[in-house]
Amino acid sequence: MAIVGATGAVGLEALAILAGRGHPASHVVAMASRRSVGQELRFGAEMLVAETRDIARLRDVDAVLLAAGARVARELAPELARSGTRVVDTSAAFRGDPAVPLVIPEINGAELRRVPPPRLVAAPNCSTIILLVALEPLRRRFGLEHVEVTTFQAMSGAGQAATRELEVQTRARLDGSTLAPEVFPEPCGFNVFPHESPVDPETGLNVEEREMIDETRRIWNEPDARIVPSCFRVPALRAHGQSVALRFRKRTSVDEIRRVLARDPNVTVQDERERSLFPSLLRAIGRDDVLVGRIRQSPAGDGSFQLWICGDHLRKGAALNALQILDTLTEPP
Amino acid sequence: MAIVGATGAVGLEALAILAGRGHPASHVVAMASRRSVGQELRFGAEMLVAETRDIARLRDVDAVLLAAGARVARELAPELARSGTRVVDTSAAFRGDPAVPLVIPEINGAELRRVPPPRLVAAPNCSTIILLVALEPLRRRFGLEHVEVTTFQAMSGAGQAATRELEVQTRARLDGSTLAPEVFPEPCGFNVFPHESPVDPETGLNVEEREMIDETRRIWNEPDARIVPSCFRVPALRAHGQSVALRFRKRTSVDEIRRVLARDPNVTVQDERERSLFPSLLRAIGRDDVLVGRIRQSPAGDGSFQLWICGDHLRKGAALNALQILDTLTEPP
Repeated sequence: MAIVGATGAVGLEALAILAGRGHPASHVVAMASRRSVGQELRFGAEMLVAETRDIARLRDVDAVLLAAGARVARELAPELARSGTRVVDTSAAFRGDPAVPLVIPEINGAELRRVPPPRLVAAPNCSTIILLVALEPLRRRFGLEHVEVTTFQAMSGAGQAATRELEVQTRARLDGSTLAPEVFPEPCGFNVFPHESPVDPETGLNVEEREMIDETRRIWNEPDARIVPSCFRVPALRAHGQSVALRFRKRTSVDEIRRVLARDPNVTVQDERERSLFPSLLRAIGRDDVLVGRIRQSPAGDGSFQLWICGDHLRKGAALNALQILDTLTEPP
Repeated sequence: MAIVGATGAVGLEALAILAGRGHPASHVVAMASRRSVGQELRFGAEMLVAETRDIARLRDVDAVLLAAGARVARELAPELARSGTRVVDTSAAFRGDPAVPLVIPEINGAELRRVPPPRLVAAPNCSTIILLVALEPLRRRFGLEHVEVTTFQAMSGAGQAATRELEVQTRARLDGSTLAPEVFPEPCGFNVFPHESPVDPETGLNVEEREMIDETRRIWNEPDARIVPSCFRVPALRAHGQSVALRFRKRTSVDEIRRVLARDPNVTVQDERERSLFPSLLRAIGRDDVLVGRIRQSPAGDGSFQLWICGDHLRKGAALNALQILDTLTEPP
């Protein structure tokens, strides 16, 4: 198993998950960009050293997790896949490519069991994964007619430089000063703004929203699925929240929704109205599942429902989902 | 003019607005709770000293802004109003009282010009004000059939202790430690959670959401208005954001919506898709108007629209709105 981009946020999380599983350090190759080569990386009780990206070496590995951005993915993935290596890419490079399956194993894992099995698989955007994992048991049981979602995405979703910028800018503002932004278009400390990805001048949708729509339609195999995202950055260090409104095809109730979600192994319901115990970003950090709460009937009386989802965008939203894909691709038939 | 609760967040903002208008310091009485009496308060170039709450003294004043919470309001407001003083209360004490007008002057200011004029007026919740000010030109022009809103509310909306808690907890987390929360149910630094007001076990709505619904229906005088709020706290020091989905009664377009909003003196449109220039919490701080951007047609193709509103919850959301009410109540006929 090799991880390319091992010193990035997703790469580090993948190493932590593998170490936690008891995967032997000697079976993990960690590769990074030139400026991070030589960096020491904790792997449980042992240490790995980040190596130079080397495609010849990667060809000898059974499975590669690409977490190094779209440019590196386009450079390495097709060639590795041709040589027989199983590759999962966590960047946006292949998410829209009809020849490359886009997979959340719990939802469309069947894509991974096609004959012959795919050699290159794309992992969806973290916001798509968190939303669809939470909705899947409801979609199967009641059908989904319309999904409206407003996201609260940690600044750190934009990478490690963004995390540092949030820390530095937050300290500056607490000390009464302001610093010019570098990663984001404006100061991020104690601020909320629309997701920083480019906006389509025609539709007004930013790339994050466009991806959530297109990826959901692909993963559900419903080209007309009605999903309406509004994506924002919040000054959090980790995890994403989603305020969701749903219209189902079948009639249901809050109790039934709660029961269906509670039975799903990938979802934990935190919805105690009396104690005001609901999901939060901090509660979601480090968890493999997705939290759902504040499940309620719309006060508009139109039969729709609202709920609140929180998930760790680095865990199930990225590294864990990618490793689960590789697990399936490399498991003995 | 007297301000009761002058050392609180809303009181201080009201003093800043009055000083900015050139209101003479000698015409302002600042009152506070026992533990804040004697505190010196900046008023432009001069200083005021917070005095003990004294109802006899307040009876001699023409106008009183109550910014000291619901308990104090219930104690003082009815008696002052009976004695002829004009009173505006910014707490929730009278917002649901059918005998007390609930007013945003730009929307239902006619309530203030009834004969005889009301002596006690309630100011709405800050989230209601910010939303309704932004929607008003659209409601007048196109009619509103359905409003879905997810709020991003600064922790400071819960008062000065909450602001301090956000600062202290943020510093702690930056330094790698965690502190037990005091104001909020869980740590607020770098976190997002549902609004902390109590949740109705029957409907699942918290008090903030219930107020937004009930107040909107009162202010619009539409008992069945379909408004669906989902309220959250974000780790911001000031200002509130709102992600909104709208269905209008009449057909319209993004360009027309933008034009109608741009003509309104209480709204500033920031909606430059090419430059990604949109409202943010930091951009809204200290402004009297409300910012609107990311105006777009729903990708679901159902004729609905999305937009993003930011406003200063202490300014138009509280102190400014209350002062505007008093301006009208005390202006010569």
